[in-house]
Amino acid sequence: MNSIRQIAIELFGDTHPCLCGGGHEICLKCNHCRAQEPDRVYNGKDPIASLIDATILKADAVETEIRALCELAAKHETASVCVNSQFLALVHKVLNSHPLACTVINFPLGTNSPHAIYNEAAAVLNDGVDEIDMVQNLSALLSGNTKTAFESIERVAELCLHKTILLKVIIETCYLTNEQIVISCLLAKKAGATFVKTSTGFGPAGAKAEHIELMRKTVGPKLGVKASGGIRTKEQALEMIKAGANRIGASNVLAIVGE
Amino acid sequence: MNSIRQIAIELFGDTHPCLCGGGHEICLKCNHCRAQEPDRVYNGKDPIASLIDATILKADAVETEIRALCELAAKHETASVCVNSQFLALVHKVLNSHPLACTVINFPLGTNSPHAIYNEAAAVLNDGVDEIDMVQNLSALLSGNTKTAFESIERVAELCLHKTILLKVIIETCYLTNEQIVISCLLAKKAGATFVKTSTGFGPAGAKAEHIELMRKTVGPKLGVKASGGIRTKEQALEMIKAGANRIGASNVLAIVGE
Repeated sequence: MNSIRQIAIELFGDTHPCLCGGGHEICLKCNHCRAQEPDRVYNGKDPIASLIDATILKADAVETEIRALCELAAKHETASVCVNSQFLALVHKVLNSHPLACTVINFPLGTNSPHAIYNEAAAVLNDGVDEIDMVQNLSALLSGNTKTAFESIERVAELCLHKTILLKVIIETCYLTNEQIVISCLLAKKAGATFVKTSTGFGPAGAKAEHIELMRKTVGPKLGVKASGGIRTKEQALEMIKAGANRIGASNVLAIVGE
Repeated sequence: MNSIRQIAIELFGDTHPCLCGGGHEICLKCNHCRAQEPDRVYNGKDPIASLIDATILKADAVETEIRALCELAAKHETASVCVNSQFLALVHKVLNSHPLACTVINFPLGTNSPHAIYNEAAAVLNDGVDEIDMVQNLSALLSGNTKTAFESIERVAELCLHKTILLKVIIETCYLTNEQIVISCLLAKKAGATFVKTSTGFGPAGAKAEHIELMRKTVGPKLGVKASGGIRTKEQALEMIKAGANRIGASNVLAIVGE
């Protein structure tokens, strides 16, 4: 694999040294520079629960399950409750704005058109949401069309920045080479995303510590890195955090907080 | 299970005899009455290829695969090419409006909010499409909220009728009881859909002949019935057609046309 620096130069051309603390890469001239923002890395002190997006995204989820998830998330003070958009109204009804409400778009396949992705983002922002986990335009990326992949994120990031909504870009590592992982992270960072995230949980594999390390190295300390997909134990969660993750997507909250 | 007639009365209240040729059920007072339209049943004469929606919907599909699918579909004169919306532009570039261009929305989980479903439909209609396969609002249906499930289809059906676009509602039979299959078909018919369809191909099971029979019995001859998910041989396709299907979703076109 080419170095992260080389890949960035090939993608974005000649640039200046990075200002946002990575020190290991060129400046991407991001749509939203985060150099002056606090680091998004785990401080080693906050309870593990505060890193968790308590998540149910399966096709056959029903209201009673989502309600129970909300109650568990509130009790343990997780970062957010992450549900499909059909359940956002219920989450708002059960929770009083904490934990935060998170939903997914272009999910789980990552194969919607840019126009469809944008329209879906507009809809869920209207439904009311604090965080959006968007699958990148995987079809475009895998077909080598990085311009379309970038623009698909950029348009949603603009909407989110305007409303101070946190945007996590799911790159779906299981389908990507290491070079494609780097490219995906650079595109997400330059486009204005707040986080990069490993997996939907619907692909053939979920989060791996080696991918978290590569993603953290690529985006530096100013973006968040979320590990998700197949994280079912406290040991797995701690491995991801050690590798650089500062957010964990998990269905089984109790197994991870250790009760 | 209650009879189809009883289920329809419970859903929609007192009604009149059906005019659209089923003869076995009450009139649903559909948003778009199809009593005067030709039957959507297989005539036993057209080549099997003409019933096929040549389909690639996987997350890691790339442009070269979609291009090859289009060429195969054109050669064998399938009904449509069914792809994720990211590839609609490519389909239009390769094909000259035949076979038709079909895409999917609220796919594959069936868990988007009504607003998100509507916005996505508007986007793909704008992208240019002849047929839309929409997963019903499965979350709402499974949570017993038939009103929301109905309205989610109704709003998309209105858009489609206005543009004479064919709407197939994927009910995702693998998650449903027989009674829920009947309810889903009645909601889709009343809301103005053109077809009911068994499966996304991403659930734990695909099309089953017994479900096709029940769906055909429920909707009568004026709606189409599409079998999809796991249909990989000519024998399977013929079994579905015998059970009442007049459209087949399949990735392996050659296996079914028998070359």
